[in-house]
Amino acid sequence: MKNKLNLTMLTDFYEITMANGYFETGMADNIAYFDMFFRRVPDGGGYAIMAGVEQVIEYLKNLTFTDEDIEYLRAKNYFCEEFLEYLKNFEFSCDVWAVPEGTPIFPHEPILTVRGPVIQAQFVETMILLTINHQSLIATKASRIVRSAMGRPVMEFGTRRAHNSDAAIYGARAAYIGGCAATACTIAERDYGIKSAGTMAHSWVQMFDDEYTAFKKYAEIYPENCILLVDTYNVLKSGVPNAIRVFKEMNPPKMGIRIDSGDVAYLTKKARKMLDDAGLEDCQIVVSNSLDEYIIRDVIMEGACIDSFGVGERLITAKSEPVFGGVYKLVALESDGVVVPKIKISENVEKITNPGFKNLFRLYDKDTGKARGDVITLAQETVPEQDEYEIFDPNAVWKRTTVKNYTVRNLHVQLFDKGKCVYESPSIDEIKEYCKQQLETLWGETLRFENPQTYYVDLSQKLWEMKNNLLSGHSKK
Amino acid sequence: MKNKLNLTMLTDFYEITMANGYFETGMADNIAYFDMFFRRVPDGGGYAIMAGVEQVIEYLKNLTFTDEDIEYLRAKNYFCEEFLEYLKNFEFSCDVWAVPEGTPIFPHEPILTVRGPVIQAQFVETMILLTINHQSLIATKASRIVRSAMGRPVMEFGTRRAHNSDAAIYGARAAYIGGCAATACTIAERDYGIKSAGTMAHSWVQMFDDEYTAFKKYAEIYPENCILLVDTYNVLKSGVPNAIRVFKEMNPPKMGIRIDSGDVAYLTKKARKMLDDAGLEDCQIVVSNSLDEYIIRDVIMEGACIDSFGVGERLITAKSEPVFGGVYKLVALESDGVVVPKIKISENVEKITNPGFKNLFRLYDKDTGKARGDVITLAQETVPEQDEYEIFDPNAVWKRTTVKNYTVRNLHVQLFDKGKCVYESPSIDEIKEYCKQQLETLWGETLRFENPQTYYVDLSQKLWEMKNNLLSGHSKK
Repeated sequence: MKNKLNLTMLTDFYEITMANGYFETGMADNIAYFDMFFRRVPDGGGYAIMAGVEQVIEYLKNLTFTDEDIEYLRAKNYFCEEFLEYLKNFEFSCDVWAVPEGTPIFPHEPILTVRGPVIQAQFVETMILLTINHQSLIATKASRIVRSAMGRPVMEFGTRRAHNSDAAIYGARAAYIGGCAATACTIAERDYGIKSAGTMAHSWVQMFDDEYTAFKKYAEIYPENCILLVDTYNVLKSGVPNAIRVFKEMNPPKMGIRIDSGDVAYLTKKARKMLDDAGLEDCQIVVSNSLDEYIIRDVIMEGACIDSFGVGERLITAKSEPVFGGVYKLVALESDGVVVPKIKISENVEKITNPGFKNLFRLYDKDTGKARGDVITLAQETVPEQDEYEIFDPNAVWKRTTVKNYTVRNLHVQLFDKGKCVYESPSIDEIKEYCKQQLETLWGETLRFENPQTYYVDLSQKLWEMKNNLLSGHSKK
Repeated sequence: MKNKLNLTMLTDFYEITMANGYFETGMADNIAYFDMFFRRVPDGGGYAIMAGVEQVIEYLKNLTFTDEDIEYLRAKNYFCEEFLEYLKNFEFSCDVWAVPEGTPIFPHEPILTVRGPVIQAQFVETMILLTINHQSLIATKASRIVRSAMGRPVMEFGTRRAHNSDAAIYGARAAYIGGCAATACTIAERDYGIKSAGTMAHSWVQMFDDEYTAFKKYAEIYPENCILLVDTYNVLKSGVPNAIRVFKEMNPPKMGIRIDSGDVAYLTKKARKMLDDAGLEDCQIVVSNSLDEYIIRDVIMEGACIDSFGVGERLITAKSEPVFGGVYKLVALESDGVVVPKIKISENVEKITNPGFKNLFRLYDKDTGKARGDVITLAQETVPEQDEYEIFDPNAVWKRTTVKNYTVRNLHVQLFDKGKCVYESPSIDEIKEYCKQQLETLWGETLRFENPQTYYVDLSQKLWEMKNNLLSGHSKK
């Protein structure tokens, strides 16, 4: 049972000034379409992982302005009374589509679309961005780190370095979607079913007269999960020998050691040998010292003897690039029921938006199951499952590929229909499993940590033509 | 009025396994002392800003395990019934001291100390670290960015890129403490009194048939704060001319333009000239495009004509270094009422802790008001205000300085006395003002962005001797 805050007022102030503006200009009910998309994958990676949809739904379901909010806004002396009255009776009535959580997503794809009265569709921008940006950032980073561990479990240990409470909680959730096996964050288990784990800090060891006693007491209390932290004094001279002594005396059903400092490649190789020599081949070695995908990859290559990883600050803050740059742009208006596409021009070609109300399809090879590419289309289009389908690079239209023997999947699911939620989020374990399965549809070239192959995200012929007509129209002005 | 969540269960799982462990070993009520401190300033800076104390107090006041929490823990099949009973009746009874919010703080200083039954003093580790780490990170980054703007107001615009809701809200609070003038985050004003600000997005401009109409309508509604976003189409060919036309027609009491893309040094110089030529010398220029302290310093040096800055993702995520590495370490135990210092040894000299129950003093020059250095002492010691006082570098004891003509301030305030809150947080504006005033006590050498002079943080003779005795004792083992 989660005790939720009403986050309606968690919005950029300009969303409210614009909302009042649309109200005062009589445009409030004009129907607008907004897309969320992002322009590049953090860390120079080849894919990102969609996450945060369940929390967007919660937010939209709970949109309500309290009397206190209205009072606060009135006191700003900025907004007209009729607008404040409108907010009092605010009822969310938009349509919302999104790519399901756990899906690999790529730059320029419409990962979430809102259609509705502009006063509403604009207002929800801030929280939609904040929610999807944060969780997609962490799920994407977690996916990289988990892959670097080559099948060894990775635990999310970063709560104390998270950017406050929600970053810890939803970060743990996103890390789990991205493939982490567990979290240190207890409340994330209570509220979101993310398995929580953890054993002892150095202070536990320091509380006793000596390390052996600290280990022995712990083993007496937790024989079922007896992971001993061996680096409070000296890993090889004191920690591992004391752990071995306790394991031999107690023979706990699950035993392990954790090393949280020093050179983990060197220390784990030495420790493994000491454990094996003592006949403790079943004793696991957990490592948790400033890790990320690069260090994990390197220490594994160096032959470090590690059974699982605890990853802290570099995962929970996505330290190497802590921003997921999702944006939310107007792409169309309705005029007498006709969808009129809108485009945002920029000197920077990368920043030009894909106009119109759109759909997103993924083509999978029938034999290998691998993803061949994505196609963004106009909303009324589909990509037919037929003998062959030609895709082309929208920035280099002579680059054309004919895809054969494929299946097609529409990546958009509808979340809200005229303000009514029509989507039930899968369980967190279903999302995690789906994410794992979808990652397996990507080629190794796309999964590479550095300089990956760019995954094909193409436009349908119709969308491409419409976009180019709009661009030509603008440049003639 | 803030609607608060109970965050008692926002804790690393090992805090609970250790708590149960202390309970089962009969050590629960042993009195322990923990210090929070950090080892280096992010971004290679010379100082950090303490922030988050008010939220630590809120957290500690609200520590309660609900029946649901107990049920959740029972279902883990990990903890003894007597311990769960203890949690049910949990009452926080520790003493807590901290450095007030807004104070410049330095590596290795005890910025927060908890004394009490180890079962409690250990348990609160995670949330104390998370809270102080996050807000100090952002306050420190904000302080750098605000200083780079050389007196021009800096607005915090990063809500959409924050690491979820709390990171936006408390990030806005911390940024304000660090010197920001306002935030885009509306709820931070409603709940924390941080002035919120904002005008329009590109979508406002796109909603109208043309840019001029979009500006005109906005000016009609908001003449008192008429900041027009001029880069939707073309800053110099379209945005600025349309803004000038509207300003001339409407003559709003407060007028400005905002530029959110392109080369802001070039564009603002050109725009300034166009505005001045039109007789609009009062029109302000606001800039907001991927800014941080380095870019702001550079564009000001290049002669950019900017009146204020909006800073987004690089502030709210502290992008260049998104981790404040505060740690929480056992420093002493009480045995029959006697304080027994504890030290954590490490191969890495930097990681050796300062043992014992301690105090923290700052010496200010009587004439200049400038801070001369800090002295960490044993708790029962004081630094006397006398003719002279000798300080020395604890890592190079031959480096000694005699300070004369000084005043002394004890930087620790008591927050809790046996679990009872005895501290009232200053208002957010008082904290901000205090921070500003305290920054003025630091020398320019310490404030430098890169390679600053290391501020003196010395140990009292008694503390130094005690630490060295403990180290010698350990090395003899």
